[in-house]
Amino acid sequence: MAKEKKFVEAITSMEEDFAQWYTDIIKKADLVDYSSVRGCMIIRPYGYAIWELIQKELDRRFKETGHENVYMPMFIPESLLQKEKDHVEGFAPEVAWVTHGGSEPLTERLCVRPTSETLFCDHYKNIIQSYRDLPKLYNQWCSVVRWEKTTRPFLRTVEFLWQEGHTVHATAEEAEEETLRMLNVYASFCEDFLAIPVIKGKKTEKEKFAGAKATYTIESLMHDGKALQSGTSHNFGDGFARAFGIQYLDRDNQLKYAHQTSWGVTTRLIGALIMVHGDDSGLVLPPKVAPVQLIIIPVQQHVEGVLDKAYELKERLSKVCRVKVDDSDKMPGWKFSEHEMRGVPLRLEVGPKDIEKNQVVLVKRENREKIFVSMDELETVIPKLMDEIQQSLYNKALRLREERTFIAKDLDEFERIINEKQGFIKAMWCGDQACEDKVKERTAATARCIPFEQEKVGDKCLCCGEEARHMVIWGRAY
Amino acid sequence: MAKEKKFVEAITSMEEDFAQWYTDIIKKADLVDYSSVRGCMIIRPYGYAIWELIQKELDRRFKETGHENVYMPMFIPESLLQKEKDHVEGFAPEVAWVTHGGSEPLTERLCVRPTSETLFCDHYKNIIQSYRDLPKLYNQWCSVVRWEKTTRPFLRTVEFLWQEGHTVHATAEEAEEETLRMLNVYASFCEDFLAIPVIKGKKTEKEKFAGAKATYTIESLMHDGKALQSGTSHNFGDGFARAFGIQYLDRDNQLKYAHQTSWGVTTRLIGALIMVHGDDSGLVLPPKVAPVQLIIIPVQQHVEGVLDKAYELKERLSKVCRVKVDDSDKMPGWKFSEHEMRGVPLRLEVGPKDIEKNQVVLVKRENREKIFVSMDELETVIPKLMDEIQQSLYNKALRLREERTFIAKDLDEFERIINEKQGFIKAMWCGDQACEDKVKERTAATARCIPFEQEKVGDKCLCCGEEARHMVIWGRAY
Repeated sequence: MAKEKKFVEAITSMEEDFAQWYTDIIKKADLVDYSSVRGCMIIRPYGYAIWELIQKELDRRFKETGHENVYMPMFIPESLLQKEKDHVEGFAPEVAWVTHGGSEPLTERLCVRPTSETLFCDHYKNIIQSYRDLPKLYNQWCSVVRWEKTTRPFLRTVEFLWQEGHTVHATAEEAEEETLRMLNVYASFCEDFLAIPVIKGKKTEKEKFAGAKATYTIESLMHDGKALQSGTSHNFGDGFARAFGIQYLDRDNQLKYAHQTSWGVTTRLIGALIMVHGDDSGLVLPPKVAPVQLIIIPVQQHVEGVLDKAYELKERLSKVCRVKVDDSDKMPGWKFSEHEMRGVPLRLEVGPKDIEKNQVVLVKRENREKIFVSMDELETVIPKLMDEIQQSLYNKALRLREERTFIAKDLDEFERIINEKQGFIKAMWCGDQACEDKVKERTAATARCIPFEQEKVGDKCLCCGEEARHMVIWGRAY
Repeated sequence: MAKEKKFVEAITSMEEDFAQWYTDIIKKADLVDYSSVRGCMIIRPYGYAIWELIQKELDRRFKETGHENVYMPMFIPESLLQKEKDHVEGFAPEVAWVTHGGSEPLTERLCVRPTSETLFCDHYKNIIQSYRDLPKLYNQWCSVVRWEKTTRPFLRTVEFLWQEGHTVHATAEEAEEETLRMLNVYASFCEDFLAIPVIKGKKTEKEKFAGAKATYTIESLMHDGKALQSGTSHNFGDGFARAFGIQYLDRDNQLKYAHQTSWGVTTRLIGALIMVHGDDSGLVLPPKVAPVQLIIIPVQQHVEGVLDKAYELKERLSKVCRVKVDDSDKMPGWKFSEHEMRGVPLRLEVGPKDIEKNQVVLVKRENREKIFVSMDELETVIPKLMDEIQQSLYNKALRLREERTFIAKDLDEFERIINEKQGFIKAMWCGDQACEDKVKERTAATARCIPFEQEKVGDKCLCCGEEARHMVIWGRAY
């Protein structure tokens, strides 16, 4: 056993060192490995299986709302990147540049896409002529590269996986509708599928996407009280269309500029899953996004009939959930810890005595609650338990967010709260970027969003004391 | 209608100019668009939908044979690429080099992966310690970059989409078994799913993959008589394991080098689909890989009840096939041509008279055969027709290949055949690379493979006249 991997080593507790706890989980739950390439991670089978479930469900929702997948080149010629002024300013400082092909220097250097607006625009310019060609509702699954200095697996990496939707519409109204539609797709996906409650809102001018007219966001709260931007949806107006010359002949025989949107979520959603649901025994996965929903652990598996029963149950239950048997030669206690570390929502223990009584023991990952169930009822009990667990995780996360959402009237109070308690802070803002800058400078917190659901928590800007225009959700963010 | 796209323009005929015919199809069937990035293509929704069907089916077959998906970084540090001598020699001349991140030069340049053996090896070295960790059966879906000078969409592009399987085994025997297993997965996928007959065989030393001990291949024949390498599977022996230090502690307590394989197919399979099944009216898709299997064309759609009937049929038939209604305001004849161009396997025409008679007209794409069918029987007739079409396309492709497979006894005969008729040529070979080189020099044909199914078409090497060791399939290749 000397060279065997030890799973059961305890991980750092969340309270003690949250960052180390996170790092322990991603390694010990076999989600990622570090690579020889600075800032790039290896997504291991278990981590990738989670991403595949995310992809499949999101892709279904995108197609349901009329979107089609395409694939664009991974390179962007420098001159193309430069066509939209704000966009190039935002991204040029953090792109990777290809300068040589084989042994020859390129006549124009290419960046590895940090995002693909410019490529989509270049294509749209060619394929859109008439109002009949609109809308175009495209999406792409790929990886992008941003030359970040400080990286952490899933949360911020030089290369990451994502999807980017890029759409074109005839009118400003349709573009705005699409931007909000996709924000809502993201929000309901996070809440229903990942059991992560989110706050929907608009980014401030300072925080919006480079080149956008408006950026909408969903923001979630992690276990340590820090915020995570979990998905964004941008309305570009006709800014890119003007920069790239995307025009269509309308019904009234006039040439008009098109209106565009883009929207994306990334593998950082896996980071959110860890930091919203995880605990000191490891990962906790909501059933819908769990690659293995039920793990069967044979107890006293050397006793005749036990392994056969485990396989038989697996056969039966694979019709109602994603199920595996752990028939390795480790002790049951070790196996329990391993699958807890990997966040498997439900464990089924079956041994000789259980077989005698025609029952099994089910144990929930989230709270180790034990349930004795007749073997005959598993097909009805297990799906019901999965639903309960899914809902319970969501409720728990929502409770946590509510407990850690505070109100601050002025900057002193704001500072005290953020330093003592961490969390979301609701505070009024005048709309002036100088005040926003000042909050960040003093507290390292940023405006996460101007939530759609406004609430009047005061009359005056927390910073300058002038009349407030918006309630803003602030927080320190990943 | 002035700015409307014209689908019905005839395309260049295959006989007249095969290359132009190919280019016409990929553009007019909306498969790809050219991009501003030299040698990189844009895969449009219809082309990408074909790729998604290919991916889904292959992924299912990979998982069925025990493989798991992972994701590796897209960059390879130069020092890592250089670890295996043959490998770096093969790939270094054709990689894209990243030299700057943001505005700073990198201390070590990174290439964009042309293939990921070195990254997988670097990872395997870290995660493999014991025989218990073996086998590792990983696969990755991604894009790779090779700095090709001459490119053609799907067939040879600077960036292309593919999957690359990378596996590690305890013994040489298991690695060889895996290499052949995956070749067989590819072969049956091509034949059953894409309706493309393939020849399975081994590459010569000259043609094998950089760093491999042995490369196996499936080769198919295009309509113009040129060969297309359609998938390869490599046995690396322990060469990479020695270069990277991938060792495991065996049951006998000895440290041993692992054995590895890799295997891949790419978006060039879409090129194969076009060039094997297409005709002068456009693309012809086998039903299994057709994004739309049945297109419903309402005839006299302004007549009351026609469109409703079309939608009703769509609802019903969506349970047995992928179906769409074309309710655009174009003339039926235009619609026929459009969907023929896009290779939709079956067309359903329904008009007022058909409704009266409770029947529809079905038209097969492959030969325009018309079939009158009662509306009540569609659910049984259509799936049966799909099977028939799938089989018929395979049979036709196989017949074509047989008609264009020739035997040559010596180099003169070989040259005459390849110049006059193009196609596969079976000829005996002594095994000496000098002879292989000479064939290529004189005829531009290469050894496609040494087929598993050997056939003695002579005793002597076609080139030197010495005793022959293998029957080889030769051809000019894409």
